[in-house]
Amino acid sequence: MSDFLRTLPWTTLAMRAVFADAAVIGHALAFEAALARAEAAEGVISTAVAAQIVEACRTMSVDPVALAEEAALAGTLAIPLVARLRDALSGDAVAAAHRGATSQDVADTVMMMQARAASALVLTDLDRVSVALADLAARHASRPAIGRTLLQDALPLSFGLRIAHWMTGVDEAAQRVRHEAARCQVQLGGAAGTRAGLADRGAAIAAHVAADLGLVAAEPWQARRGDIAALASAVAIAIGALGKMARDISLLAQNAVGEAREPAIVGRGGSSAMAHKRNPTGCQVALSAAIRAPGLVAAILSGLPQEEERGLGGWQAEGPALADLFLLAAGAADAMAIVAEGLEIDTVAIARNLAAAEIGTDIGESAAIVAALLARHKG
Amino acid sequence: MSDFLRTLPWTTLAMRAVFADAAVIGHALAFEAALARAEAAEGVISTAVAAQIVEACRTMSVDPVALAEEAALAGTLAIPLVARLRDALSGDAVAAAHRGATSQDVADTVMMMQARAASALVLTDLDRVSVALADLAARHASRPAIGRTLLQDALPLSFGLRIAHWMTGVDEAAQRVRHEAARCQVQLGGAAGTRAGLADRGAAIAAHVAADLGLVAAEPWQARRGDIAALASAVAIAIGALGKMARDISLLAQNAVGEAREPAIVGRGGSSAMAHKRNPTGCQVALSAAIRAPGLVAAILSGLPQEEERGLGGWQAEGPALADLFLLAAGAADAMAIVAEGLEIDTVAIARNLAAAEIGTDIGESAAIVAALLARHKG
Amino acid sequence: MSDFLRTLPWTTLAMRAVFADAAVIGHALAFEAALARAEAAEGVISTAVAAQIVEACRTMSVDPVALAEEAALAGTLAIPLVARLRDALSGDAVAAAHRGATSQDVADTVMMMQARAASALVLTDLDRVSVALADLAARHASRPAIGRTLLQDALPLSFGLRIAHWMTGVDEAAQRVRHEAARCQVQLGGAAGTRAGLADRGAAIAAHVAADLGLVAAEPWQARRGDIAALASAVAIAIGALGKMARDISLLAQNAVGEAREPAIVGRGGSSAMAHKRNPTGCQVALSAAIRAPGLVAAILSGLPQEEERGLGGWQAEGPALADLFLLAAGAADAMAIVAEGLEIDTVAIARNLAAAEIGTDIGESAAIVAALLARHKG
Amino acid sequence: MSDFLRTLPWTTLAMRAVFADAAVIGHALAFEAALARAEAAEGVISTAVAAQIVEACRTMSVDPVALAEEAALAGTLAIPLVARLRDALSGDAVAAAHRGATSQDVADTVMMMQARAASALVLTDLDRVSVALADLAARHASRPAIGRTLLQDALPLSFGLRIAHWMTGVDEAAQRVRHEAARCQVQLGGAAGTRAGLADRGAAIAAHVAADLGLVAAEPWQARRGDIAALASAVAIAIGALGKMARDISLLAQNAVGEAREPAIVGRGGSSAMAHKRNPTGCQVALSAAIRAPGLVAAILSGLPQEEERGLGGWQAEGPALADLFLLAAGAADAMAIVAEGLEIDTVAIARNLAAAEIGTDIGESAAIVAALLARHKG
Repeated sequence: MSDFLRTLPWTTLAMRAVFADAAVIGHALAFEAALARAEAAEGVISTAVAAQIVEACRTMSVDPVALAEEAALAGTLAIPLVARLRDALSGDAVAAAHRGATSQDVADTVMMMQARAASALVLTDLDRVSVALADLAARHASRPAIGRTLLQDALPLSFGLRIAHWMTGVDEAAQRVRHEAARCQVQLGGAAGTRAGLADRGAAIAAHVAADLGLVAAEPWQARRGDIAALASAVAIAIGALGKMARDISLLAQNAVGEAREPAIVGRGGSSAMAHKRNPTGCQVALSAAIRAPGLVAAILSGLPQEEERGLGGWQAEGPALADLFLLAAGAADAMAIVAEGLEIDTVAIARNLAAAEIGTDIGESAAIVAALLARHKG
Repeated sequence: MSDFLRTLPWTTLAMRAVFADAAVIGHALAFEAALARAEAAEGVISTAVAAQIVEACRTMSVDPVALAEEAALAGTLAIPLVARLRDALSGDAVAAAHRGATSQDVADTVMMMQARAASALVLTDLDRVSVALADLAARHASRPAIGRTLLQDALPLSFGLRIAHWMTGVDEAAQRVRHEAARCQVQLGGAAGTRAGLADRGAAIAAHVAADLGLVAAEPWQARRGDIAALASAVAIAIGALGKMARDISLLAQNAVGEAREPAIVGRGGSSAMAHKRNPTGCQVALSAAIRAPGLVAAILSGLPQEEERGLGGWQAEGPALADLFLLAAGAADAMAIVAEGLEIDTVAIARNLAAAEIGTDIGESAAIVAALLARHKG
Repeated sequence: MSDFLRTLPWTTLAMRAVFADAAVIGHALAFEAALARAEAAEGVISTAVAAQIVEACRTMSVDPVALAEEAALAGTLAIPLVARLRDALSGDAVAAAHRGATSQDVADTVMMMQARAASALVLTDLDRVSVALADLAARHASRPAIGRTLLQDALPLSFGLRIAHWMTGVDEAAQRVRHEAARCQVQLGGAAGTRAGLADRGAAIAAHVAADLGLVAAEPWQARRGDIAALASAVAIAIGALGKMARDISLLAQNAVGEAREPAIVGRGGSSAMAHKRNPTGCQVALSAAIRAPGLVAAILSGLPQEEERGLGGWQAEGPALADLFLLAAGAADAMAIVAEGLEIDTVAIARNLAAAEIGTDIGESAAIVAALLARHKG
Repeated sequence: MSDFLRTLPWTTLAMRAVFADAAVIGHALAFEAALARAEAAEGVISTAVAAQIVEACRTMSVDPVALAEEAALAGTLAIPLVARLRDALSGDAVAAAHRGATSQDVADTVMMMQARAASALVLTDLDRVSVALADLAARHASRPAIGRTLLQDALPLSFGLRIAHWMTGVDEAAQRVRHEAARCQVQLGGAAGTRAGLADRGAAIAAHVAADLGLVAAEPWQARRGDIAALASAVAIAIGALGKMARDISLLAQNAVGEAREPAIVGRGGSSAMAHKRNPTGCQVALSAAIRAPGLVAAILSGLPQEEERGLGGWQAEGPALADLFLLAAGAADAMAIVAEGLEIDTVAIARNLAAAEIGTDIGESAAIVAALLARHKG
């Protein structure tokens, strides 16, 4: 039952892949394999048993639809997945698989692996946006244009200054995403977060698993979810920065203004009723994302007061909301990268609108401010 | 690229089908067919041309993935779909197809058809919940139990009174959903919402299309979106009513309380680490939905100040948010219907907890209040 | 410690008064007086005792700051207020005051009295908006203007059609607020919502109190809060309808567009740096409210899964959020009423912009749609 | 018109003072004075003129209610305030006051001064919470207790481990608030953000003003608001961390559990109907804040796509939402500090509940994890 139409207008295939069933299953099995290797390294299970588990994780095939149905019934992915893994094992490996771990260890670690991968994708596209904007900002650093506040003509600024602000907004947001993504931690605590069942080697095992999966080692953080909320906020702020740029470009692209518009792309931005239109379709993706993102962050923040050692409701609400944020961010960043890279700037219209304001051409320290923002961009 | 794992723990297959690609395409073609029939009925196009369009809509096959990619590029579903429809037509029918309509007419009408179908599904499951609760409320209408306020023992009430409140909460919420779903209107306004291009027969044509598709006839409502927000709120309130019931049952199911618990179902509510546990997995679905729903409503409300004749961002944000609300409501309603139908009530624990409070057994007018609420339920 | 600067830019003094300390205390004492009268009418307390309580409620003076401090400590307003009331009484009246009631009865009934009064204020201003818009819509029902979708010139519509949509959006929203406000119910359930302590006369006493205070009689609804959420949503939708109108007017008022602008009012919409500007300050109030309202609704929806007979957190979150929604709605409705009543429409600019679009002047059925919307407005 | 009852149950007087009219006016005049000093230092105005402005800012008295009314009309605080300032000046000082600045410079700088002061207050109370929790965590680091996941008994953990997680949650949240608060920047850009009118000394003047007011110097950031959103998120995460602790304590305080409860304080947590109750009133404040905070963050995030050089609606929505977040955080942090400092832990109940679970007493590496978290707390 495909539902591409629900997601494609606002995300990328690459990001969709990050949150697809195949990725979930792959990450979950990678966790189980890493756990087995770590437990063998620390002498908690034998090397042969670990090898059997690792091999099963590598080779077993899982039907995502059947798994999803069982997971829905069980209320957790790990139960049916670990059952399948154990079916593929024999001897001591059956009991050794998933030893000391609990469903949340799997689910949270998978989410962190997805968050890291998703952040990398978003950062790449944010960088495309920013690089293209830096070039435009530099080129128009001293071009007088009318500045507008509260949607009214105000005083002149340089056209590049407006663009430089978009760039810095994106850069600062990317910096936040990067900072939070670098904190993505492995989860390994067992049923009550005590690392019982790991023969007092829990901390070392967690460190091995983290290194294996490219995550940060840490104490278990079962119902302590501030980092998730901070990552979600960072992604939403990035969406907002793209939305700000999209808001401006869509305003500049109004027929009566005409100072900038999205690049012409075959098949993009048309109208089913009006062949002459060129709609700001990239801006539409970003603005739509910027309207949806705040509520997703609110959901994750709402879930923070989670009950005792594992929340009922709040925890389960995080995953889909975080995924949606990344899906939206990917769509918005990709759309606005295309817009930035091909932005059409009409210098005649810029000059005409400024002249119409009859307010002179004093752009103050615009060029110096652009230079300062570009210096930060490069720093 | 399947992503069942992202959705199945919290929705039903039936609801997923309502928002699947096949439904979108089917509804969109149903709109185009209804439009052709209506225009023929009003003499705007010929009967033969209409018949050709209707037949094409009935028989044409559309690859949803390719369509989605083109729709993403175009920024609207209608452009690539109408192009395909026209490819399947010849002669006058090519120009006659989609006559007088615009992308938003298709998109909004599809959304309303989905909203109506989704509401019906949700109402059926809410009714299951309510009927099961009515029975429980009646049976325990006079059974003394300890009432709890602010999570502290307060005074006695009847156990059935608490259940009757769950029932009434669900009933009242269902009534709101029913009321809003009955208002679902056809959208038919053309590019600027003026019904230009319909030979002054626009109102009559819209009435035909509405009747054909089972929607309400109305003036175009392009950027006037209060009804969408009201429907979204109604669905979210229903989710909240289910969440309230889930909150209570999960509290009653605590080991130290033990007054009620979810039915035992093979494969449900287990733990990957602790075989002895029976987790409140149905409640988890409802509580998770109740945490996610408010942010989705907020997104739709945020989009209300849409620009002029069609919004940029706000309009596009509605569809996915409304779909998610229905997907969540379906999962929550189905889960809590199963819980309500099989709820295990431990009368010994109820009596023990009441006795421990040492506050007597005066349940006041509990039974009368239950009776009044049941009377409203049946009315 | 005044904090007018935090509230005045976005609300009215009249609405501020609805939620001021004096109103809270006045309503709470009105509840206690009505309860005493009702209990006397039903023979639960003596007429003389009731008279003493009523007189004390009428004449006692309460320092709101001291009361607030004690209420903050107690976690509820009723405890220090009832203590003061009892201090003002003697004999049997001391015990008779507040008989059978609990803190929540006071708090919820006060909130409902405020909601009713606040709704009335909002409805009055929404009506001002709507009446003014109806006049404008009728006058410009056939005036061709360029319609804009996705912020791009699309096809012509009549300028009055756009205004008629604003009007209908406001009318429909007002209708929702009116519907929900008419449901405002008295709360009278006692500590566990059983009406214990009312000598089996609870339903009759509640009916008396409701009639006395102008509220609807109902069974207790302690943790069943769907109506609050629905009222909040209705108010937010009204804010959204005002925001939509504000969005459009601020776009039309752009210097490059110039089709409409807010009335010139001495002291309004200026700039501390640019004497020549006329800022869309009324639109600013409405748009700001439209950005803040969705999160307030989300808070109330988030609180719906309240624990057992009285929620811990969710219940307490409602009052401030609902008050803020009304405060925002008042500011937005008043601001947009002023805008609507004095809206300056520049027919020359309208004609010029339409001509620039080179798309003709066919406004389709605009006038008929305006007529239909006006007919609904008057109906 | 006092409205203490609307705010006091959920905030502190100290935080209320940060956002009171007196603080707003004081900060705004401090900005004007600092600007005059800076312009004199850079030779843009004379020292004597600056001295006259500084003296007027120091001595002038402003009626907040009248100012608020004019500010509401003007749509900005700066216009009536600067008018008053100029009335108090003579000669060249009249024109020199507010030179090169715009309303937004005043408003944003005031907000940043408030944010910095508010953050300091919150951090102090978060520290009180954390210090008290660290002591409790150390004392109960090895005390076996039953761990609970999904509200069901799971496996043992040490009671101190649960507390240590509360502590770390608060510590990590405080760290985020501290980080964001340290970034609070002066705003000084003039009408279009170009620093026109500052004789090419804008950057130097901004640096002086920032140093004078204790803020960070930066380029103007007029419609680039990511930092505000990040600060808001950080505050909301802190509220969530307090809410998590409150959730747990309220669950532990249930009569049937009884493992911990809030300290007994005269006048706190009673019931107007039940003298025997001790309600978790501190937890109520924190949980209520945790339900309200997410929507406030959503509002600020929703406002990010601000129009061009100064947003219409989005910008104006930030201040009240940010203030509410700090007001909520103050109430929650203070309430939970009191709870943490006096938390009553019932070791008998802890042991009894653990025994009832019949799951042994293996607390795994609980003590080591507590030690690791305490080490981070002290680090």
